[in-house]
Amino acid sequence: MEHGMLITSLQNERIKRMVALGQKSSLRRSEGVIVVEGRRELEHCLQCGHEVVAVYHCPALLDSTPACACPHYEVTREVYEKIAYRGSTEGVIAEVRPRQLTLDDLRLGEQPLMIVLEAVEKPGNLGAVLRSADAAHADAVVVCDPLTDLYNPNIIRSSIGAIFTVPCVACTSEECISYLKTNNIQILTAQLQDSLPYYDTDMRCGTAIVMGTESTGLTNQWRAAADRHIRIPMKGQLDSLNVSVSAAILLFEAVRQREKR
Amino acid sequence: MEHGMLITSLQNERIKRMVALGQKSSLRRSEGVIVVEGRRELEHCLQCGHEVVAVYHCPALLDSTPACACPHYEVTREVYEKIAYRGSTEGVIAEVRPRQLTLDDLRLGEQPLMIVLEAVEKPGNLGAVLRSADAAHADAVVVCDPLTDLYNPNIIRSSIGAIFTVPCVACTSEECISYLKTNNIQILTAQLQDSLPYYDTDMRCGTAIVMGTESTGLTNQWRAAADRHIRIPMKGQLDSLNVSVSAAILLFEAVRQREKR
Repeated sequence: MEHGMLITSLQNERIKRMVALGQKSSLRRSEGVIVVEGRRELEHCLQCGHEVVAVYHCPALLDSTPACACPHYEVTREVYEKIAYRGSTEGVIAEVRPRQLTLDDLRLGEQPLMIVLEAVEKPGNLGAVLRSADAAHADAVVVCDPLTDLYNPNIIRSSIGAIFTVPCVACTSEECISYLKTNNIQILTAQLQDSLPYYDTDMRCGTAIVMGTESTGLTNQWRAAADRHIRIPMKGQLDSLNVSVSAAILLFEAVRQREKR
Repeated sequence: MEHGMLITSLQNERIKRMVALGQKSSLRRSEGVIVVEGRRELEHCLQCGHEVVAVYHCPALLDSTPACACPHYEVTREVYEKIAYRGSTEGVIAEVRPRQLTLDDLRLGEQPLMIVLEAVEKPGNLGAVLRSADAAHADAVVVCDPLTDLYNPNIIRSSIGAIFTVPCVACTSEECISYLKTNNIQILTAQLQDSLPYYDTDMRCGTAIVMGTESTGLTNQWRAAADRHIRIPMKGQLDSLNVSVSAAILLFEAVRQREKR
């Protein structure tokens, strides 16, 4: 099949594959690919070096798609609506093989800034953390939770593409602690007990901000590994902040300190 | 009917009323009452001076309820499940007449700290802003949007009770601007154009942080009324932060400056 060829049949093997990929997370995992819908999301994939396997474009919905050397097919509106999942109005959807980064793949700046989540309670929270990490230009987000599929559709959507722009690694807590110690990155754990207000902590050197869950906080493993314990002072009547809000406050304190240096 | 009496019938007039209040926003509005479910939420209502009209408690689900002088009824599990809306496991639900504050009702501290939202795109965003405003102990949240029902069930839920702990006012932009000028509260508008990084702005005096929508930003009315325009530097590849994340970063910068004074 040539590039740019028009696919009109729902029985086309490529279309059947896209439908299956959209529906079955087990198939996505076994093939190491994901489905990415939307022009902006696809642009982020291309800019950040993720491998785009094939692009499906509906000219009736979108004039043109981002330039890309990969196989590219035009589809009718009927076919597009069959393979799309986001209200079917974006007009472009692609099969993408995302980079699966390990800690050793990370290229850190001079004073790295990282967010480490010990676990992820809701995919939407990780998406929101990634969005803030992009805005703060953090070097990486690390998730120490083998249960998390980083390319879960809810994470892709809630990150509005930041899952592609921010280097993101899944590993164990042991691996992450070892990596941070080896690379002389200070470990700041967010916890209420035995902690300093975050703004009394120097974040200008290489820094990893480590956060637990909203319900149970951090494990002792991380508390023991910490260089400092930091807290966001809770001045009201409730006792917790959303994890993505907390991450943003702490990330931008690091940005502020570094800009004001 | 006495206090503490057990209601077992779904045909009881009080139960029919609670079902109707839960289902019809028009009835809640015309009566000026809301339905509040959950022990913690009810405690916040009582602590913060909202009028609790009647409490319905299912002993099978919850041992005891917060002490309260208002009419109090025990209900069977079947009746509770009929009137509950949150998965029916909280065990306590109440009819509450919330204070409807105006700007003139606000009691401001020496250096007031306020968040003003010109409009609300999603109820969940206002809930998240209220949660951060509680944590930063802001004096008030003002919503300049006559379309917003402050006690929308989604706002109550996403604020995890902060809608009751943070003074919250709905008014027009004209009223709010006039109030801020009269009370010598500086107006800081969050906008990218012609703005300073937020951390280069003194927030130790009385301060109102004003935010527009994620999609269209602030209107010219607010831009013109501003004492300063401030921005959160966007250092990544995406171009926006969630409004509740932005509000939290700006609120806690004010907290930091005031604590470090």
